[in-house]
Amino acid sequence: MAQLNFDGVDYEDGVASDPVLNGWMQGSPPRADRTIRFADDRFLYFPQNRWALSHIRELLPTVNVPRGRGPEWSLGSPAPADVDSVEALMIESLDGRRRSFSEALTDTYVDGIAVLHRGRLVYERYFGALRPELPHLSFSLTKSYAATLAATLVCEGALAADQRVTSLLPELVGSAFEDASLRHLLDMQVGVAFNEDYADPHAQVWAYARAAGTRPRPAGYTGPDGIQDFLATLQSAGPHGLIFDYKSVNTEVLCWMMQRATGVPFAALLADRIWGPIGCEFDGYLGVDAKGFAVGGSGLAMTLRDLTRFGELMRCNGARGSNQVIPAAVVADIRRGGDRAKFAGAGYDLLPGYSYRDMWWVSHDEHAAFEGRGIHGQRLYVAPAAEMVVARLASHPVATSAAHDPVTMPLLRALGRLLKGA
Amino acid sequence: MAQLNFDGVDYEDGVASDPVLNGWMQGSPPRADRTIRFADDRFLYFPQNRWALSHIRELLPTVNVPRGRGPEWSLGSPAPADVDSVEALMIESLDGRRRSFSEALTDTYVDGIAVLHRGRLVYERYFGALRPELPHLSFSLTKSYAATLAATLVCEGALAADQRVTSLLPELVGSAFEDASLRHLLDMQVGVAFNEDYADPHAQVWAYARAAGTRPRPAGYTGPDGIQDFLATLQSAGPHGLIFDYKSVNTEVLCWMMQRATGVPFAALLADRIWGPIGCEFDGYLGVDAKGFAVGGSGLAMTLRDLTRFGELMRCNGARGSNQVIPAAVVADIRRGGDRAKFAGAGYDLLPGYSYRDMWWVSHDEHAAFEGRGIHGQRLYVAPAAEMVVARLASHPVATSAAHDPVTMPLLRALGRLLKGA
Repeated sequence: MAQLNFDGVDYEDGVASDPVLNGWMQGSPPRADRTIRFADDRFLYFPQNRWALSHIRELLPTVNVPRGRGPEWSLGSPAPADVDSVEALMIESLDGRRRSFSEALTDTYVDGIAVLHRGRLVYERYFGALRPELPHLSFSLTKSYAATLAATLVCEGALAADQRVTSLLPELVGSAFEDASLRHLLDMQVGVAFNEDYADPHAQVWAYARAAGTRPRPAGYTGPDGIQDFLATLQSAGPHGLIFDYKSVNTEVLCWMMQRATGVPFAALLADRIWGPIGCEFDGYLGVDAKGFAVGGSGLAMTLRDLTRFGELMRCNGARGSNQVIPAAVVADIRRGGDRAKFAGAGYDLLPGYSYRDMWWVSHDEHAAFEGRGIHGQRLYVAPAAEMVVARLASHPVATSAAHDPVTMPLLRALGRLLKGA
Repeated sequence: MAQLNFDGVDYEDGVASDPVLNGWMQGSPPRADRTIRFADDRFLYFPQNRWALSHIRELLPTVNVPRGRGPEWSLGSPAPADVDSVEALMIESLDGRRRSFSEALTDTYVDGIAVLHRGRLVYERYFGALRPELPHLSFSLTKSYAATLAATLVCEGALAADQRVTSLLPELVGSAFEDASLRHLLDMQVGVAFNEDYADPHAQVWAYARAAGTRPRPAGYTGPDGIQDFLATLQSAGPHGLIFDYKSVNTEVLCWMMQRATGVPFAALLADRIWGPIGCEFDGYLGVDAKGFAVGGSGLAMTLRDLTRFGELMRCNGARGSNQVIPAAVVADIRRGGDRAKFAGAGYDLLPGYSYRDMWWVSHDEHAAFEGRGIHGQRLYVAPAAEMVVARLASHPVATSAAHDPVTMPLLRALGRLLKGA
């Protein structure tokens, strides 16, 4: 059986680990050794994640992000010639290995990929447990949705970029967030002691997950109950504004500020300001903690095509046709990017020249692309200079994007070059 | 504050207990004494149920029942004159007290009620936490959906009414279900030792809920893990086929048989054979246990109008226009009803003359009505002789329908008489 090696560990490849063919959650009851249970705490790990990321709602409490009742934003269907052109691409990864386009997908554990060119689908493919109608956990793509909404509220005056967190959230006085501003949150420049190394089983990110209820709590658990209580425990790691320091907890604070300022929960903001206006085909959903607070750092699930629609909205400077859904100034600010020097100091060797703004990763590359990125391979690549959007949902064995970017980045840039020539 | 007395206990009435006005789950975080949490085990009890039944998905894992992408079955909007006629009704309850129509609704803790006449809405009203787009837990209305599908599969030959449970489910050899037939399940004539008295905190129905994961498990829980494991523990209470003996576990066995026979999970059967064909407006959902088995006895949630559409399908003998969604023979068999003598012996003093067939309660009343019934006030009243369907979702303080039927039954029959004269 085909295997890939990451960090010295061998994993079955995307074909061999297909969750349906391997019997995960098939039958009633499923085989004991093919049952995926929240309590086992394995559902976010390979190979269980290959099924679970398309079925999170069956494992956790969630709140709906309704699409409303308007007509969907039509994306058309890929023409056979377009599909052939895409599949004829050979992908040369950063280590010089050449793969067919299909191999590049299965070697990066893709569950679904859709490519839009000038607003029309030119490629769309599903693997494993994902289907067109199933929302898939997007992990940190959630952040790009959240911060785009927060920047919109700033533009409208409901929030201010220099506003102190504690002016809205007195609950966080005494925490790391006490003298942080909304801008510090948006650009991940908060000095907060929070270890988010997913490869470290003792990292605080797991305490955050237990507080949020997104992983099981041990018997006798006495830790923080809910995301908001957890945020209040976080301590300072130095001044704000000095370095780019990616911490998911910043997005939770951001979402809490939005809810406090507007009185509207994050799920309803998403529904009212994105899902409805861009004509999503299907409802999305968000994981919620034990008090009903949505997991704003990583909890949003959406279908592949609905993710593509959000990307297309951003490519079109926030407008769907004549409807300016997100202010053009918000998108322009994201496209300009953030402080490249601060980003360069953060150690992302595979992302030379990038910056980070409003919870988007800004490539400053040949396609002027900006990206939403989530662990285990989630990606929304918005490439204005190629008039292209690529949405990719995946269930990679390794959390960090560094495990697949050597294949993913050449693939995305090759798609952009192909379509630029089209 | 207005109070109503049931079984010697005073409860705030439907107006005074409005969950939104009382601040349940309002704000972020909600006030500690207004937070509804799964772990507290109070969410199914009054007054928390007034919010929770419209938000079950935010408390529990669920599986979606997708509506698909077809156009909705239009029900129109109530005309003001129709609304006035309905609201002019005075309701005389079985104890002789007269109430206005609106009082009868709030005194029975209605969250939503819709009345169809000849397929058009003549009345629709929402209270408290329910909104048109929110699915509401239907409790045992789930059974009527499930058994209608099972009877359909019998009609199609995928199942047989006299088929033994263990011919499909060898896992249940040695349990109470060993020599029961599908017909015994459908008509609730299984001799199974299972105490379903919701007023008894020690009743087995709570062990079933803990196994299903629909109520929290105590620390160190070692009971059955999942509905299917629980079913295998149930012991015989005598021969089958002798008496009408209502037990929710029978529906779980029924759903398991359907899944084993078809290979299709209950949620997908509902989607393919009901939600899609009748043009539901919104997705429904089902609670699932820790192994992904849907709670077939009580776990289905749907919006008020989508419940109404199912009732209208049944009123129209299984057809939506020219599309025969459910075989007419299935509906005819339900309408004929079951064994009235067996029903009469079961002690339902408020339901004289009723029978029970395919998990519908058959009134044999002036409107030839048959009903889906769920605890805490859920009701689907299909009244062919009045060309009427009434869907009612509620969050009554008391589980048993006997607490509100003295008001509910006169209200439903008065509506039927009003529309017969229309």
